[in-house]
Amino acid sequence: MRWHGNAVVAQSGGPTAVINNSVCGVVQEWQRHRPAGTLYGALYGVRGILEGEYVNLSAQSGDLIEGLRYTPGVALGSSRYKLKTAEDYFNLLQGFKKMDIRSFFYIGGNDSMDTACQVHRLALREGYEIQVIGIPKTIDNDLPFTDHCPGYGSAAKFMATAVLETGLDLEGLITTSRVVIMEVMGRNTGWLAAATGLARRKEGSAPHLIYLPEVTFNRKHFLADLMETYRHYGLAYVVAAEGLVDETGNYLFACKSRDSFGHVRLGGLAETLKELVEEETGIKARCNVPGTLQRAAMHYASRVDADEAYRVGAEAVCLALGGQSGLMVTLEREPGEDYHCRPGAVALERVANVEKKVPREWIDPRGNDVTPALLRYVRPLIRGEIAVPASDGLPAFVHLPDLHRRNLRRKDREAS
Amino acid sequence: MRWHGNAVVAQSGGPTAVINNSVCGVVQEWQRHRPAGTLYGALYGVRGILEGEYVNLSAQSGDLIEGLRYTPGVALGSSRYKLKTAEDYFNLLQGFKKMDIRSFFYIGGNDSMDTACQVHRLALREGYEIQVIGIPKTIDNDLPFTDHCPGYGSAAKFMATAVLETGLDLEGLITTSRVVIMEVMGRNTGWLAAATGLARRKEGSAPHLIYLPEVTFNRKHFLADLMETYRHYGLAYVVAAEGLVDETGNYLFACKSRDSFGHVRLGGLAETLKELVEEETGIKARCNVPGTLQRAAMHYASRVDADEAYRVGAEAVCLALGGQSGLMVTLEREPGEDYHCRPGAVALERVANVEKKVPREWIDPRGNDVTPALLRYVRPLIRGEIAVPASDGLPAFVHLPDLHRRNLRRKDREAS
Repeated sequence: MRWHGNAVVAQSGGPTAVINNSVCGVVQEWQRHRPAGTLYGALYGVRGILEGEYVNLSAQSGDLIEGLRYTPGVALGSSRYKLKTAEDYFNLLQGFKKMDIRSFFYIGGNDSMDTACQVHRLALREGYEIQVIGIPKTIDNDLPFTDHCPGYGSAAKFMATAVLETGLDLEGLITTSRVVIMEVMGRNTGWLAAATGLARRKEGSAPHLIYLPEVTFNRKHFLADLMETYRHYGLAYVVAAEGLVDETGNYLFACKSRDSFGHVRLGGLAETLKELVEEETGIKARCNVPGTLQRAAMHYASRVDADEAYRVGAEAVCLALGGQSGLMVTLEREPGEDYHCRPGAVALERVANVEKKVPREWIDPRGNDVTPALLRYVRPLIRGEIAVPASDGLPAFVHLPDLHRRNLRRKDREAS
Repeated sequence: MRWHGNAVVAQSGGPTAVINNSVCGVVQEWQRHRPAGTLYGALYGVRGILEGEYVNLSAQSGDLIEGLRYTPGVALGSSRYKLKTAEDYFNLLQGFKKMDIRSFFYIGGNDSMDTACQVHRLALREGYEIQVIGIPKTIDNDLPFTDHCPGYGSAAKFMATAVLETGLDLEGLITTSRVVIMEVMGRNTGWLAAATGLARRKEGSAPHLIYLPEVTFNRKHFLADLMETYRHYGLAYVVAAEGLVDETGNYLFACKSRDSFGHVRLGGLAETLKELVEEETGIKARCNVPGTLQRAAMHYASRVDADEAYRVGAEAVCLALGGQSGLMVTLEREPGEDYHCRPGAVALERVANVEKKVPREWIDPRGNDVTPALLRYVRPLIRGEIAVPASDGLPAFVHLPDLHRRNLRRKDREAS
């Protein structure tokens, strides 16, 4: 195929520590092939395409693009903007036509793969020639047909390290608070919470109990398991995914009492469990809720994860330049003891809106821990560290010029 | 002075990432001087002395002792056990006599310096020859007569990095949650929250507002400041020390409504501010509460801080072997542009129970930010990183043999 036209890469949904590695992979692979067209970055996901807001990535310095390899957050900006109507999609196609975009690289999770799939179909129907390639990213690790998702390994490494370090904190200090509850991201799947099991380097060390949304949470069983741990070790370290659901089918964190104004209190999951523990057992508990740090902690990201995030970006360009469309890049783990992954591809329509949960056989029968098989699966994904350049003791991240100012202008516009 | 007898080192109160560096400094300096006696570590602070539970530090391998330099938590175990009566102190002295302890190194904060001071006085009165030296540690940085406290720099570095990274997360993603509240440790002083100001590398980036316990918190002013930030940037990143106090003199986090059972809800400070923001402005907020990770994050500790923690431990041994007693080691910053600190000493009685707060002139007049002078003070303390050995992608920390088992035995005893 003879290449013509321009290309655009966009980032969607929540950040991961390594999502910019995928942008870097797209840009550098594009440059290696030296196609005639320009590679743009759409600002704030599909919104940038709809509103004609781009940054010319072909014109950026090599140092800045290379800096994306160690910069967290979403360098191009992201949004949770949802294309709903046929008109929305038509407008998006108009946006592509206006800029002569013939290749669309969309970095995102389940929702984004659905969007990419719709764009691909519409373009086919309308006879507009464009290669649409999805690039997976999510700390939730819930995309199907790929061994795992870029972004997951780094979040897993940071959270397992956090449990290891705060587990030592708990073990070393005799105080009244003898229970720690670590709240981990994961509304529908427990992959990230499960990975903290890697922190347990010797018998009896944290985490003692791990709860995933894949198993219905039972308060009575939880309290019994907690007390057994407490009687054995004099302390208990509990890891819980934020999306735990009880027998009524409701999120635990939403089962809160009403405050003095009659509002339902939507506190966090950790606070809910802390209250349960303190009221039912009298043992004091404390909460660790790292929040968005889980998806931002580039300062201790996984080398394997960062490299794979780069490779899926580069692979997307190879697929598009080879004339392929309607695919999401995947990671395929090769059989054998040593860890090797190579890029593959799957039809977007097979991925869109499908959610991969932690298999029940990788969760302890009692539902309060993970199995060795799960740990074997995660272990290679967190290997290696990234040397983030530092300045005055803090990571020296890069940022795309003008993006911040554009952001401000956008806000001004929205506010007026 | 001709040296005789044994020595003991004990750790007290909450961990810091680098508290074990001080133990390492004590052990290695002791070994350099080759005194005849044995150096013991008391398990779980003064409790170990009262109950005769020690680990022989002179008998540990060099590798294990060196490993303390990159291992967080309290390697010897710590407690918040408080000596109250004259009898308690008398028993402690008996403990020393029994083991022929002639040197007592106590690593801790304000409370611990008070304990050390009482021991020193009692020994003098009783005519028992012992050198008592306090070794400062606290992430709170609230000890007087020392430029700063070992432990503070590492917590400051981690939290400034966390704000930098999650600030990028907030800036990059357009979503409904446009306010982030980062809850920072600090019940009475705001040194740690203040240090996050280092994350603000360019105009308009996080953190936008910083609140310290040193200034009375005013809800109306807070909401006005937040809305001004929001109008300007379309988002707001708020850092708040957990110990904020309002005009009534009460902790903010304690001013909670009652739940459906009539219990006062003692949620966290961040949740309290989140509710205030959401109810009063309608803007959705989210909370980051790293909790004990702030004092455990060796994986991104400060090189300067770790080295200083080591040096104050080593200096304590030099003072004791030189016949000094009743002192706490300090850090004295030398004048000039370049950062240099050297160890000094101050009488324990001057330190005991005194709390150093952030000076008002280092806080913005409006009380919602810190000044450049404060940032100049903190900046050198967070410099440099520590190469923590890793195994399978996680930090490979060391642990003292038998301590864990002793811990279990202790629990068994307490439970029975």
